[in-house]
Amino acid sequence: MCRWMAWLGQPARIDELLFKTEHGIVDQSLHARMGAEPTNGDGFGLGWYGTGEGPGVYRSVAPAWADANLRELAAHIESPLFLAHVRAAIGSPVQQTNCHPFRRGRWLFVHNGYIADFHLLRRDLMLAVDRELFANVQGSTDTEVVFHLALTLGLEDDPIAALEQTVGLIEATAHRRGVADPVQASFGVSDGTTLWAVRYATTGRPRSLFASADVDAVRCLHPDNPRFQRLSPDDRLIVSEPFSDLPGVWQEIPAGTAVTVHRGGVLEHQPFRPQPAGSAVTAPDLTGALDA
Amino acid sequence: MCRWMAWLGQPARIDELLFKTEHGIVDQSLHARMGAEPTNGDGFGLGWYGTGEGPGVYRSVAPAWADANLRELAAHIESPLFLAHVRAAIGSPVQQTNCHPFRRGRWLFVHNGYIADFHLLRRDLMLAVDRELFANVQGSTDTEVVFHLALTLGLEDDPIAALEQTVGLIEATAHRRGVADPVQASFGVSDGTTLWAVRYATTGRPRSLFASADVDAVRCLHPDNPRFQRLSPDDRLIVSEPFSDLPGVWQEIPAGTAVTVHRGGVLEHQPFRPQPAGSAVTAPDLTGALDA
Amino acid sequence: MCRWMAWLGQPARIDELLFKTEHGIVDQSLHARMGAEPTNGDGFGLGWYGTGEGPGVYRSVAPAWADANLRELAAHIESPLFLAHVRAAIGSPVQQTNCHPFRRGRWLFVHNGYIADFHLLRRDLMLAVDRELFANVQGSTDTEVVFHLALTLGLEDDPIAALEQTVGLIEATAHRRGVADPVQASFGVSDGTTLWAVRYATTGRPRSLFASADVDAVRCLHPDNPRFQRLSPDDRLIVSEPFSDLPGVWQEIPAGTAVTVHRGGVLEHQPFRPQPAGSAVTAPDLTGALDA
Amino acid sequence: MCRWMAWLGQPARIDELLFKTEHGIVDQSLHARMGAEPTNGDGFGLGWYGTGEGPGVYRSVAPAWADANLRELAAHIESPLFLAHVRAAIGSPVQQTNCHPFRRGRWLFVHNGYIADFHLLRRDLMLAVDRELFANVQGSTDTEVVFHLALTLGLEDDPIAALEQTVGLIEATAHRRGVADPVQASFGVSDGTTLWAVRYATTGRPRSLFASADVDAVRCLHPDNPRFQRLSPDDRLIVSEPFSDLPGVWQEIPAGTAVTVHRGGVLEHQPFRPQPAGSAVTAPDLTGALDA
Repeated sequence: MCRWMAWLGQPARIDELLFKTEHGIVDQSLHARMGAEPTNGDGFGLGWYGTGEGPGVYRSVAPAWADANLRELAAHIESPLFLAHVRAAIGSPVQQTNCHPFRRGRWLFVHNGYIADFHLLRRDLMLAVDRELFANVQGSTDTEVVFHLALTLGLEDDPIAALEQTVGLIEATAHRRGVADPVQASFGVSDGTTLWAVRYATTGRPRSLFASADVDAVRCLHPDNPRFQRLSPDDRLIVSEPFSDLPGVWQEIPAGTAVTVHRGGVLEHQPFRPQPAGSAVTAPDLTGALDA
Repeated sequence: MCRWMAWLGQPARIDELLFKTEHGIVDQSLHARMGAEPTNGDGFGLGWYGTGEGPGVYRSVAPAWADANLRELAAHIESPLFLAHVRAAIGSPVQQTNCHPFRRGRWLFVHNGYIADFHLLRRDLMLAVDRELFANVQGSTDTEVVFHLALTLGLEDDPIAALEQTVGLIEATAHRRGVADPVQASFGVSDGTTLWAVRYATTGRPRSLFASADVDAVRCLHPDNPRFQRLSPDDRLIVSEPFSDLPGVWQEIPAGTAVTVHRGGVLEHQPFRPQPAGSAVTAPDLTGALDA
Repeated sequence: MCRWMAWLGQPARIDELLFKTEHGIVDQSLHARMGAEPTNGDGFGLGWYGTGEGPGVYRSVAPAWADANLRELAAHIESPLFLAHVRAAIGSPVQQTNCHPFRRGRWLFVHNGYIADFHLLRRDLMLAVDRELFANVQGSTDTEVVFHLALTLGLEDDPIAALEQTVGLIEATAHRRGVADPVQASFGVSDGTTLWAVRYATTGRPRSLFASADVDAVRCLHPDNPRFQRLSPDDRLIVSEPFSDLPGVWQEIPAGTAVTVHRGGVLEHQPFRPQPAGSAVTAPDLTGALDA
Repeated sequence: MCRWMAWLGQPARIDELLFKTEHGIVDQSLHARMGAEPTNGDGFGLGWYGTGEGPGVYRSVAPAWADANLRELAAHIESPLFLAHVRAAIGSPVQQTNCHPFRRGRWLFVHNGYIADFHLLRRDLMLAVDRELFANVQGSTDTEVVFHLALTLGLEDDPIAALEQTVGLIEATAHRRGVADPVQASFGVSDGTTLWAVRYATTGRPRSLFASADVDAVRCLHPDNPRFQRLSPDDRLIVSEPFSDLPGVWQEIPAGTAVTVHRGGVLEHQPFRPQPAGSAVTAPDLTGALDA
């Protein structure tokens, strides 16, 4: 289990949302409430857009709650768009290359959930990764492979469609290998301008996922909260679990749904429907995998 | 032995000076030329002024040449004033709290050199640290104690005078304990506006220290270097050893000298003359120890 | 809050007690039941007696549950006497020099608890550490200072008496500085032959501490447990919290009590009564500070 | 570039050979003489046979010269057969899963050298790894893939023959992909009883590799060296570069040679001749790879 959050809005100092928020993501590293485990102490990652080309990524194997450098960076970096992730490892080693977010060019990717029996599927899935991208896989998580599959299947053109194909490919592979209920996921993706999030499970209830409500609604509900008065209509948060218990601030993203957050705070919903892997893209690779 | 560098000038992306410069500080972590050892692989530190209150500090026990996070930060943070330090430990553990720069409030401090037989002097020197500051010493280096002594002796009012008193106090203590040639040092200090540097040894040749020459001189000498053409008259570098071998770019800071770099690139020299610890300053503190 | 355990008995492979025991110390790093917090993820330490001179010490900043090296060592080292500790930091940095056990010569020391307002007392307490030992303090925990005070006050001659003086000194210092309820502690000490443990708080209920019962009693209560049948009369465990919930296996060590475990499994109780610091011991030291 | 060493002989405390030997492997982490670079500071690994099932493995990202835990383990573990490795990364991240030795069951594997343009070959080579072994590859080094190829090709039955097939497979793959001079290597392998070492390069001079001479010869040459008098006829060392400059102590292993060290100190030489990959084992996989 893991927890993640994403901010798209006015430039914000990162510690405002990581440390100075009630039950923020760093608090969730020690005291998550909605996950399988309260502790997410197997590494941290932050990807932010701002100064410099493409996103910066800071990844650490120290638990978020105890990482002195994270406090420093969060207090001294401002960004209009960033993703943060706290990790609870399931089997794979605690190392920086297994920490989210994963990056390619301008793109960032985070994941809360798992591919069931990943060790049984890893080879087939790696084989379906584009030949040019294969050598970029540096760690051993399921998430990094999911990201590279999605890149292979067009993430940079249409993130939601690519993730629908990716999940479809994983489910088909799992079916072939006799693995049940393979995908449990909330995904977060960004290119530095737009933010996408998906909540999906092959079977049953997927990992929790929430979006912040319209700022107007939030302000009306809590007129005395100075923090909320500073929010602008541009600001949106996507989070694995709510930062506070205030009513009306958070809206659950339904299971089987993808959301798109545009600049200006516009939030769009659409169904998330995994697609069988299209023959045009993956057939040659998959044939090879099957023959083997 | 260690190596450090400081930049005061136009806002610069940090990797321009850490990674993209010939024989920059990160290269010096592996291939220093003027130190006792070529390798400075026992940790790295960066302190920078910019977004947020006071300086940010990133310290890592990974060798600078192999620290993925350092590359990320350097490529995505811009600053008009920063100090970087690569460490070669002499006895004390490799841990973040032993990495430079040390910080208090707006102040940063780096050091290349040593206090001889520090284990024989540590208690006496710690005792001379202001009672209020004592508990802030988190690591076990000589440098952190030197910094807290200088804070005790007025660093925030007059850095050079405070360092003269600090070195005087260390030399007097060493004399009392039978330790010869106690101080070998180049110091770097900043408050976010001004930069100070000191080159001094009790006996013999102190650690190397250089300042970049006037920008006009540099440009005239190397009219075809596009990099130098981007420099403004405001820009100054202070470095343990020159980044490149180009003639006329670097001027050695003489032994027994303190320099002050003001905004606008103005560089002032003055002699550095250790002062015997004034009774007015340290006697009450010691008395305090007894009264307590 | 922290958790610790100690084994004195037949040579045992360390993983038998760290990993293969229900609710062992590594499980307690993630799921402690009797502490202020369930998570003890701020570092791990193991000190063991066996091959080589004096005890070996392995200390890691990785959470115990995720440290691959710890699993390796535990599976490949056998020892008749070892102490293990999982840390939950309260303020001081997560670094190896802040991990328990602390060592001097043949002696090991672990602590669960705290010195209240340690930052207010640190200077006074450091001053009371023997001049020769002062420079050995490498980290910034209260425990390391307690250990060096106890060494100053005769730990190597009489551990319980030295700890009574140490706690007395801390309580007197706290009183002078206006700090209430200064000591909360369970201590573990060994010299490689004998094991000592103390449970004490200045006020209120001290940290939990348990000893394993006589082997005969344990076996009678659980005749079908093959694990317990392998225990010999020589074997004793001291633990912050019981490894399992089996009735009769664990006996609580009463508050204000010190126990001594001798080879052969003999367990002796005695009251633990802090002693006001004797003038003979500490006065000269303070005078020495002045004379110096 | 990396450096490694292996010991097979009387049970030895590991620090005798890691720390107490002139120019031992830890010294080589900072001051290698025969490699492309003097510094091997990108991680350390030790695999040893002794207590417990199979070999224990300790791997650390700290430079060997500064790793406090390594000193502890080396001073408190005794073993009749161990391999140690200091790493200089060429591109792949500094993480424990990229440190040598690699292990499967009773087998350990170390490597000094490289597969040229590994990123171009990684996918093909991974594809040739046995399907059951694929998911065990946890890091991103060429060496880990070489080890898993050798396991696929029969390392556990005949290590030298398997490595000949492995190198043949790599060379054939490189040829197909247009990569010249693909293999530069000294390999070390053990199953806990026997030790194998290979020195080979596709073209040119391979990495240096030495074996210690017969003990009788060593003793005769240096009759006054008490250290050598303690050696028994059972003792053999294989090293990337000699520990000392004493004449007659070290014999260079010729290029294109494999050596086998049996218990009792017997050292056998044989030519190392890469074999084209046998169709029986790898054809189906390679077909898949090719089609892709």
